[in-house]
Amino acid sequence: MKITALAGGVGGAKLAHGLAQILSSNELSIIVNTGDDFEHYGLTICPDLDTVCYTLAGLANPETGWGRENESWRVIENAAKLGGPNWFRLGDQDIATHLERTRRLKEGQLLSEITNDFCKAWGIQHTIFPMSDSPVRTIVTTDEGELAFQEYFVHRRCEPRVKGFRFDKIEVAVPALGAVEAITSSDAIVICPSNPWVSVDPILKVAGVLDAIKNKKVVAVSPIIGGKTVKGPAAKMYAELGIEPSANAVAKHYQNLLSGFVLDTIDKDLKNNINIPTLATNTMMNTIAERAQVARDVLHFIRSL
Amino acid sequence: MKITALAGGVGGAKLAHGLAQILSSNELSIIVNTGDDFEHYGLTICPDLDTVCYTLAGLANPETGWGRENESWRVIENAAKLGGPNWFRLGDQDIATHLERTRRLKEGQLLSEITNDFCKAWGIQHTIFPMSDSPVRTIVTTDEGELAFQEYFVHRRCEPRVKGFRFDKIEVAVPALGAVEAITSSDAIVICPSNPWVSVDPILKVAGVLDAIKNKKVVAVSPIIGGKTVKGPAAKMYAELGIEPSANAVAKHYQNLLSGFVLDTIDKDLKNNINIPTLATNTMMNTIAERAQVARDVLHFIRSL
Repeated sequence: MKITALAGGVGGAKLAHGLAQILSSNELSIIVNTGDDFEHYGLTICPDLDTVCYTLAGLANPETGWGRENESWRVIENAAKLGGPNWFRLGDQDIATHLERTRRLKEGQLLSEITNDFCKAWGIQHTIFPMSDSPVRTIVTTDEGELAFQEYFVHRRCEPRVKGFRFDKIEVAVPALGAVEAITSSDAIVICPSNPWVSVDPILKVAGVLDAIKNKKVVAVSPIIGGKTVKGPAAKMYAELGIEPSANAVAKHYQNLLSGFVLDTIDKDLKNNINIPTLATNTMMNTIAERAQVARDVLHFIRSL
Repeated sequence: MKITALAGGVGGAKLAHGLAQILSSNELSIIVNTGDDFEHYGLTICPDLDTVCYTLAGLANPETGWGRENESWRVIENAAKLGGPNWFRLGDQDIATHLERTRRLKEGQLLSEITNDFCKAWGIQHTIFPMSDSPVRTIVTTDEGELAFQEYFVHRRCEPRVKGFRFDKIEVAVPALGAVEAITSSDAIVICPSNPWVSVDPILKVAGVLDAIKNKKVVAVSPIIGGKTVKGPAAKMYAELGIEPSANAVAKHYQNLLSGFVLDTIDKDLKNNINIPTLATNTMMNTIAERAQVARDVLHFIRSL
């Protein structure tokens, strides 16, 4: 069974890693949100893409889920001494990724090519696609006006009240080289437990993605567990948009797209309110083994549909 | 006595540091070559400027004379793992300087303003000017064609045979804010023991610098000692250009500009061949105290002229 997974940052990376433990490189591709990308210190930074790559490579910081293990902070600390911004904590190893990526982007290379080469260098077997080879930038509309995503997410710690989202340049976004083909040749699509508003929606809006997905089995895993998120502002966003945060709300978000839905055991009573096949299982992924277990459950569920 | 020193990299930085130990911030300004600057990984790197700043701040690596003390190399090592170029060894602390400088340059700020702020942050009392607020790039003409300076100097280890030099955009180079005024208000100019061809000549060619210097007492310190350089390719360049490398050759290089010349005790016999007042003294600056001693000798010599 060939699977394409759609993923955002930490939660998505964990399930992608679970799937990668079970499926071969021919059986799994991962398409990652790049709406969170931004330019900082002249560097093109792709937080979700790097989180997925670092996680699959076994290089991620196990404490935070993002950034690198055994990271050091000499660059950003010295830049801060010179008055440079340090609200976005760039680690030394992480900066190497951004520097080399930016160098190659400036040479005119595609983000997908660069990502592919980085994955090889990091020993990653599976193909990881950025959702697009052209820059898309998620803008959060808040009660304080529009904020670039990382400005909202990291600098302002998700404090401004959310009123909506837009994805700058999504209309002209070029899908990454091979990404739509990966979907087309897949038997099923797994929407990882990532933020529906700002991690998955941008991927779905890239030209060709939704059309390619429509005729496939699609299963989403809820990022909302017991009305809360493990990490990130998805639940807060639902609430501020006037929707009670719940696994139900996530299922409704993707409505016509889904063949099946996966929610956490804690939310098993909500199954009755969801009118598509729904699996209740443990979806917490605290350990590497749990990532594989959730992936196994999801794959078993897909086969049953 | 007010002094403006003209300096390139390591040798120039040492004498500038010597002068800074003796003269107050009102008595000494330093103008530094920026012809060696280049763009690497999208960063604007100013090797001579940083060497002078790090040296005066007491942050320089005492072993190499360039780069930072207690440096680490995590960024460049990780970038190299991704296939990025590592022929120019960028240290982690040093990268912070380049990142913050590049960030501010892209905001439209002047290199002289940025340098001034960096000096304050590093606790440097004296004013250090880049020679220009617009990019000038030294190009080395060699038997293998034209090479950008750092390509010649670091990547190719000065191996190609030198045929000449040109300074790209020197004709339109804007002197740094306040640099010409510093010269004008000085009593004397000290040309530090830097490479005459690629460290000092570019400074002299910036619009207004030569005119401002002409009516001043100008003393140059020979970077060539016993026919060799302490560091760098000046002697090799003289030889390849068909000129015997010697303190004489340096004096001749600056000819009409000089009021006096300083050469090393080892070369004291050459004094007879130089038709301007010439001081022979120890010019090796292995220790911080020796830097001050050479500066003291130079200042005493200037007063005698």
